[in-house]
Amino acid sequence: MKAPTIIALLHGPDQPGLVSRVSSWIFLRGSNIHHADQHKDLEANIFFQRVEWTPSGHIDEEAAAFEKFASEELGMKVTVAQSEDRPKVALFVSKINHCFHDTILRFRAGEMAGELACIISNHEALEKEAKRYDIPFYHIPVSAATKAQAEAKQLEIVHKYDAKLVVMARYMQVLSEDFLTNAGCPVINIHHSFLPAFAGGKPYHQAHTRGVKLIGATAHYATADLDEGPIIYQDVTRINHRNSVPDLVRKGKDLEKSVFAQAIRLHLDNRILVYNNKTVVFD
Amino acid sequence: MKAPTIIALLHGPDQPGLVSRVSSWIFLRGSNIHHADQHKDLEANIFFQRVEWTPSGHIDEEAAAFEKFASEELGMKVTVAQSEDRPKVALFVSKINHCFHDTILRFRAGEMAGELACIISNHEALEKEAKRYDIPFYHIPVSAATKAQAEAKQLEIVHKYDAKLVVMARYMQVLSEDFLTNAGCPVINIHHSFLPAFAGGKPYHQAHTRGVKLIGATAHYATADLDEGPIIYQDVTRINHRNSVPDLVRKGKDLEKSVFAQAIRLHLDNRILVYNNKTVVFD
Amino acid sequence: MKAPTIIALLHGPDQPGLVSRVSSWIFLRGSNIHHADQHKDLEANIFFQRVEWTPSGHIDEEAAAFEKFASEELGMKVTVAQSEDRPKVALFVSKINHCFHDTILRFRAGEMAGELACIISNHEALEKEAKRYDIPFYHIPVSAATKAQAEAKQLEIVHKYDAKLVVMARYMQVLSEDFLTNAGCPVINIHHSFLPAFAGGKPYHQAHTRGVKLIGATAHYATADLDEGPIIYQDVTRINHRNSVPDLVRKGKDLEKSVFAQAIRLHLDNRILVYNNKTVVFD
Amino acid sequence: MKAPTIIALLHGPDQPGLVSRVSSWIFLRGSNIHHADQHKDLEANIFFQRVEWTPSGHIDEEAAAFEKFASEELGMKVTVAQSEDRPKVALFVSKINHCFHDTILRFRAGEMAGELACIISNHEALEKEAKRYDIPFYHIPVSAATKAQAEAKQLEIVHKYDAKLVVMARYMQVLSEDFLTNAGCPVINIHHSFLPAFAGGKPYHQAHTRGVKLIGATAHYATADLDEGPIIYQDVTRINHRNSVPDLVRKGKDLEKSVFAQAIRLHLDNRILVYNNKTVVFD
Repeated sequence: MKAPTIIALLHGPDQPGLVSRVSSWIFLRGSNIHHADQHKDLEANIFFQRVEWTPSGHIDEEAAAFEKFASEELGMKVTVAQSEDRPKVALFVSKINHCFHDTILRFRAGEMAGELACIISNHEALEKEAKRYDIPFYHIPVSAATKAQAEAKQLEIVHKYDAKLVVMARYMQVLSEDFLTNAGCPVINIHHSFLPAFAGGKPYHQAHTRGVKLIGATAHYATADLDEGPIIYQDVTRINHRNSVPDLVRKGKDLEKSVFAQAIRLHLDNRILVYNNKTVVFD
Repeated sequence: MKAPTIIALLHGPDQPGLVSRVSSWIFLRGSNIHHADQHKDLEANIFFQRVEWTPSGHIDEEAAAFEKFASEELGMKVTVAQSEDRPKVALFVSKINHCFHDTILRFRAGEMAGELACIISNHEALEKEAKRYDIPFYHIPVSAATKAQAEAKQLEIVHKYDAKLVVMARYMQVLSEDFLTNAGCPVINIHHSFLPAFAGGKPYHQAHTRGVKLIGATAHYATADLDEGPIIYQDVTRINHRNSVPDLVRKGKDLEKSVFAQAIRLHLDNRILVYNNKTVVFD
Repeated sequence: MKAPTIIALLHGPDQPGLVSRVSSWIFLRGSNIHHADQHKDLEANIFFQRVEWTPSGHIDEEAAAFEKFASEELGMKVTVAQSEDRPKVALFVSKINHCFHDTILRFRAGEMAGELACIISNHEALEKEAKRYDIPFYHIPVSAATKAQAEAKQLEIVHKYDAKLVVMARYMQVLSEDFLTNAGCPVINIHHSFLPAFAGGKPYHQAHTRGVKLIGATAHYATADLDEGPIIYQDVTRINHRNSVPDLVRKGKDLEKSVFAQAIRLHLDNRILVYNNKTVVFD
Repeated sequence: MKAPTIIALLHGPDQPGLVSRVSSWIFLRGSNIHHADQHKDLEANIFFQRVEWTPSGHIDEEAAAFEKFASEELGMKVTVAQSEDRPKVALFVSKINHCFHDTILRFRAGEMAGELACIISNHEALEKEAKRYDIPFYHIPVSAATKAQAEAKQLEIVHKYDAKLVVMARYMQVLSEDFLTNAGCPVINIHHSFLPAFAGGKPYHQAHTRGVKLIGATAHYATADLDEGPIIYQDVTRINHRNSVPDLVRKGKDLEKSVFAQAIRLHLDNRILVYNNKTVVFD
């Protein structure tokens, strides 16, 4: 049985001695560092760190004390999590179901350090499936005319469940800047191309028309600029002239599932820092 | 010792019985098919075939007879080659030398069904190296003012050596539409991104700025629309936040070498058909 | 709406004119070839072909006529299938459920040209899940003492459902030579290593101990020699020194799912021929 | 212009505060850590670290002082290098030349933090090529009868050039335990299979016979147990039934080159620690 750990993600202006000051703070409390990974962006002069340790004292107190130390004494932006945390996750979906099933099964198999709390869909198509999995399902239709109201309802549910992460499992609507601002938590989207190639709609059709020899999938944090958010993970697979658009769709489904899952897992394991529309992923 | 074979590449409007008529023509002459690969583009209604066989009679006569049969009786566009052909290849290069060395060494190692006949460069940087390899080297400087004249000289050399293929081993000049029209042979270029992402200049800088998690290389036939030609081969490699632009350049060099070589090899093995700005690659 | 096609898989001693004779037989009946792929093993002097066409006449009659032609006139071993066929598949499983869920969901999503007819398990663990999917589930415990009887019951169920394929989705028992002989259909197994490395039990532990930098999965036809059957498909993923055995297990699950699915799909699409303990895969 | 750095590789029994003590030692001298990467093998209770910093004082003195601190005060095994170091490397080769050319060109291109000092071969085949590259070449024939004497001569040359690394670029002789012991430096070998599959001779023939769908290459430190040394890096590529043994050889050459180069680069960048016949690679 592994003892619970504290995981801190820090970033801020680089300054001498940061590694030493962080590790000494932990050591001097009698605590034991398991992992510590650093990165410096030399151009931007920013220091990034992920550090994980077993606290010697009360875990909540030590976590709070570290947060205070890192922000007040080191001047870093810091988030502190615990290995036992299981933050709530809200899953958005439309009718396409491969990422839906895959994501749910991975949460159920214990692959994810979180809890799938609720499902929100603009269609009823997957309601029965959601119920089979015993996960609350909310059908909120969205049209151009009702989008603002629909997003208000979505936000209400996200907040009701205290979701710390929203994941868009091929949810076929753009979330507005308002939604993203008010959600109060990050949103991860899966796009079915190796961005920045084939941004926008129907990427498999675009890929087929252009005659590329690889197709890809990209998981990124959603921002108001569609398909322009910080990229978390990407992967590709080989195609050839025999492959029609439906073949690309079939092959792409496997990519989308694994890339989406990898991004969610990295996020819930507290491995990602965002800056300058890019990610630092301590994996 | 493998007997010499004839390799035909056909394409044209689909019609019933093409596979049968081609294979029967060969069989009835007492010849022996080794490989036959077909493809139909059902949307465009085009039939594509690569067929390779050992002729029973005189190879040149049988090749000529087949060409006549395929074009006149089947109404196909056809190119007929022989396994013993070693077409001349002209290599264009600037100062960057990794694709230069790699391509030359592969020709010398017998990996390519062609002969590297000459090297043309807008710089003198690689002249000494070219001579070490005993390959004729032509230094033709190119400036905005002299581009037309320089291309005229380049064409003269390409024609003097009767080159059947031009390969641009990180040649840092755009070849004009005039050059491409008058070369009388295909031109293969290597671009250091997974096109269509990061077309244009400095793709590794673009990739670094965008924060992608994969970089790639793309070999394509050169057309007047820069970076828009038919894609032959692509590959990618994984990068992370630690990788600076020089790291991407270093990692990308390996991609560029292998992708470029693969495209040249496929072309010289008569495995590529081009239509609608895409390629059919029978590999 | 695509018209139904006939798919024939042939193999036998090479002889001149096989491609021509097959394609002419089809052409002369007024039928239309869509795909034809050939291979020759020059050492073994064996010819292999997969040919797919739209029949001009009654599909069952044309399929039967071709079978007779290929076996009697060409002396080939031949299997003839139709694109509309949906052969029954029996899934064997123990307690590990990732391949179980993945396989079922792919059949339900229409990715597979077959019907998942029944599930047989030596444990009750997945009974409830199987019922949620509305697939008949048979719990047949297996112990050393009862193995023969258990296999007799398994065979009875396989035959009752007229299964044309058995797939072992991490079924943790070795099927005896008797079972394999009497099943009357091929059996596909998934092994969690890149065979022939780490054959036998606990391959992830073996991989961790040896310190390899890649782990893999292998789908193969089951034979009496455990882990020695003809390999259908393999894939690998990168690991590093940070990965513990549980990490390998987690990463390997994704490999196992996709490799297993790919093998089942290739088989049900009639793309695989077996000879000399190897496979020819026309993909 | 990047300031020179010190790179230390430490490993030894885990104990509380190691990260803190190392980073504080560096900080308190006014020096600046660029990278620090740690790993713990929890089963073996061993701590591993690679730490790189810009010294505030004289680089040689600070390097020596750290070595003393790490070994005497922390009880760690430690090696200390400098970013400006260019250790001498001896390349062993027989007749096969792809890794030979590739390795030399990478050293010349500045990809490697070392200097290719000499080439030793049991054949004369590559002498002329070596001279074109202006690298001293030593022809030392090896037969069963003369092996001991030949190795004595090889050692003499390795020592004469003060080589800190020997790399076997498809050198087709086994180096004896005596040689490995007396070389006084590590030896990196490239094997043309994804070890532990197809250890021993003719791995491409073995792969072809077994019918695998992937071939690979493995770079490892040479030990007295042939093909059993600690693995540094591996990669694979896909093959199919059309590929003959010569095709595997051709495809494998690209794997061998890149895997071998990657291993040499990781070693010369001081990124590898060896223990329990495995490697920790801080990349």
